[in-house]
Amino acid sequence: MVGGMVQPTSVKAALASDAPVETLLVRGWVRTRRDAKSFSFIELNDGSCLKSLQVIADSALPNYADIQRLTTGASVSVHGQLVASQGQGQKWEVRAAAVEIIGASDASYPLQKKGHTAEFLREIAHLRPRSNLFGCVFRVRSRLAYAIHQFFQERGFAYVHTPIITGSDCEGAGELFRVTTLDLQNPPKREDGAIDCAKDFFARPTYLTVSGQLEAEAFACALSKVYTFGPTFRAENSNTSRHASEFWMIEPEMAFCDLAGNMDVAEEFVKYLIHDARAHCAEDLELFAKFVDKGLLERLDFVVNRPFQRVSYTEAVELLTKSGHPFEYPVEYGTNLQSEHERYLTEQHFKCPVTVYNYPKEIKPFYMRLNADDRTVTAMDVLVPGIGEIIGGSQRGNGSTCSRPTCAATTSIRRITPGTWTCGVTGPCRTPDSAWVLNAC
Amino acid sequence: MVGGMVQPTSVKAALASDAPVETLLVRGWVRTRRDAKSFSFIELNDGSCLKSLQVIADSALPNYADIQRLTTGASVSVHGQLVASQGQGQKWEVRAAAVEIIGASDASYPLQKKGHTAEFLREIAHLRPRSNLFGCVFRVRSRLAYAIHQFFQERGFAYVHTPIITGSDCEGAGELFRVTTLDLQNPPKREDGAIDCAKDFFARPTYLTVSGQLEAEAFACALSKVYTFGPTFRAENSNTSRHASEFWMIEPEMAFCDLAGNMDVAEEFVKYLIHDARAHCAEDLELFAKFVDKGLLERLDFVVNRPFQRVSYTEAVELLTKSGHPFEYPVEYGTNLQSEHERYLTEQHFKCPVTVYNYPKEIKPFYMRLNADDRTVTAMDVLVPGIGEIIGGSQRGNGSTCSRPTCAATTSIRRITPGTWTCGVTGPCRTPDSAWVLNAC
Repeated sequence: MVGGMVQPTSVKAALASDAPVETLLVRGWVRTRRDAKSFSFIELNDGSCLKSLQVIADSALPNYADIQRLTTGASVSVHGQLVASQGQGQKWEVRAAAVEIIGASDASYPLQKKGHTAEFLREIAHLRPRSNLFGCVFRVRSRLAYAIHQFFQERGFAYVHTPIITGSDCEGAGELFRVTTLDLQNPPKREDGAIDCAKDFFARPTYLTVSGQLEAEAFACALSKVYTFGPTFRAENSNTSRHASEFWMIEPEMAFCDLAGNMDVAEEFVKYLIHDARAHCAEDLELFAKFVDKGLLERLDFVVNRPFQRVSYTEAVELLTKSGHPFEYPVEYGTNLQSEHERYLTEQHFKCPVTVYNYPKEIKPFYMRLNADDRTVTAMDVLVPGIGEIIGGSQRGNGSTCSRPTCAATTSIRRITPGTWTCGVTGPCRTPDSAWVLNAC
Repeated sequence: MVGGMVQPTSVKAALASDAPVETLLVRGWVRTRRDAKSFSFIELNDGSCLKSLQVIADSALPNYADIQRLTTGASVSVHGQLVASQGQGQKWEVRAAAVEIIGASDASYPLQKKGHTAEFLREIAHLRPRSNLFGCVFRVRSRLAYAIHQFFQERGFAYVHTPIITGSDCEGAGELFRVTTLDLQNPPKREDGAIDCAKDFFARPTYLTVSGQLEAEAFACALSKVYTFGPTFRAENSNTSRHASEFWMIEPEMAFCDLAGNMDVAEEFVKYLIHDARAHCAEDLELFAKFVDKGLLERLDFVVNRPFQRVSYTEAVELLTKSGHPFEYPVEYGTNLQSEHERYLTEQHFKCPVTVYNYPKEIKPFYMRLNADDRTVTAMDVLVPGIGEIIGGSQRGNGSTCSRPTCAATTSIRRITPGTWTCGVTGPCRTPDSAWVLNAC
């Protein structure tokens, strides 16, 4: 074996090298291979970055006949020399001293080098991360998840793991997933014929969490600033681009914070994450801009570079009504803003990201703080172009100012008014009231 | 209001100040209050660190009568001056210019300033994070969670979110939690009387994941190095210190990595996390050492400072058998090592952390690589004093070398032999075979 105990290098690190390397070890999967007169060119990808590394295998290599049979999807380990590339499009290439074939591939390999639809890739989910598009998706997702932790940890927030399995019941059980170890075919029953939940694993009905907010509030009342970042579940049979039955959600909760402070952090958070992705995922974002969403980079820069405009819900409704713009859904005080309204505010009217605050109490959950006008609550939504709402949040009420009287029961342990906001990683989802009523009150 | 728009400071930052501060704003909860001749001393805690900040409220303050009624648990906002403390035990204290009482407390507040048992604190889970002990627990947990991300991200691993709800069935269904939206009382049935799972949310039986390993392997075969860090579920009715029905688990998966490389990373990981906790959570760890586990710091340093000893399972069994030590459970080739055996190896025999590798194939899952001896598989367990096994891992098999023939069906898409290991945050738990058989084969 040439190279002996050489430490492996990622393709990303090799491509970023600032000097030739005498002995290099790279491993990965063959994207394509083509033959020249006395060479074989292998495009080697290891998922560390979008780009592949060109490997030049000389016909003098002892296993050259096997190398010439390498096809897309095969995995190889290459020892060689990193040298300046003669070809176009890359700075470095590898002159192979040895190519070890770890796993061969053949023509039945589903992910051949050509364009594939997202629908087809979904059918081969185990191979999908090897495609250019989903490699980029998962690298960006990983980097942003890390940036989320960095943002909060640098600002003194504690990360808390709130329970996934919860005893919170709800008003409309269809929205929750039930968690059980009962035998569904022959469940134990009580004398009256009802299911005997006392025989279930936790001796009562349990569900998958729809929000860690309640627990995060308790933590914030001890550690001052906390955040959750974990999976959340909704059993809504809603097939839109904004609904998922399982998604990872971020729920920061700050004690001693009012709505203005809440908006400050939410807006800073959005800018921080975009800036981080622009800095660390440039190549991946460029692929999205090229093949998925042509205006992506401009829209990201738009949000990073312009200050947020803050406008009350009442003012926003007035602006929209007076705009004369033909909306599909009518705008009226007391109704939720639709994506088209939210996008109009950012894209057409203000031409900047917008934070709308002080919503009518009727369209927001009970736990939000009632304003002195007795009509609106301290809610806020952060809106960005192309999406609309990307973060929703509120200052919490306490017993005396809460917009619903059921909340009063817990004020003995909720002495302060924390503020919070939520940000859906796969799409924003607000906590349904239902989960809260029994939980908190 | 004195202080106006002064930005709030955490107690941690105030205590770490390197100079007096003219105008300071701190908020938190009263731990204790006592009166002197013309002052009231308030111990203010905000959960940013274990220590409280002493606030001196002068009897000249306009609301001094209210301040004198402040009791443990009340929340206050204090504007004042950070000055060198006259008293013992603290470097800095605050001379209050204004004390705003946000929420009062009274004698019914359950967490009075005195010693509380862990059992009592469990009964007041919403207040538990305000206790010294659990404040430390949750600060350390947050810091270590962050350090886990740092460790992997710095080494080029991508963080992947593997599914929580899974269709994987298992051999012994009692170990899995069922996830369903069917009406348990009146489930839809097929003609033959069986539950009609086609009517369930995902149109088939679904469960909570016991491991993200399968998905992580697919990701590793695209991105080379990945890790999971998410909640995991076991429905075992096992009430030990090492079992939890819901816990957060870390599952790294590395392509092109053999057992030696696997052990390298696992050992480095353990040392990294301990080092990080020692550096960032010194005060919290000292509380544990004082009140929970007197030998803690020595044991942590023991693991950080000594190189790991690697020993094969066969050698370990020989050592234990010859030791003459009176074990509760007999040691015999072919049985799992018990905690007492694992601890003997680290604490008594080697006097250092130990990694045991190459276990008999009969006691390990099917997916591990069979060694050339045809008896052992490429498994490894990392052992530390006081606990025993803290990480378990293995090099994966492929079709031709796997210790169970059922695995062969997937080799067409698993062309490489990744290595992995798992580390339980609340306790180590190995993937049960059962979940794998239908999943992977």
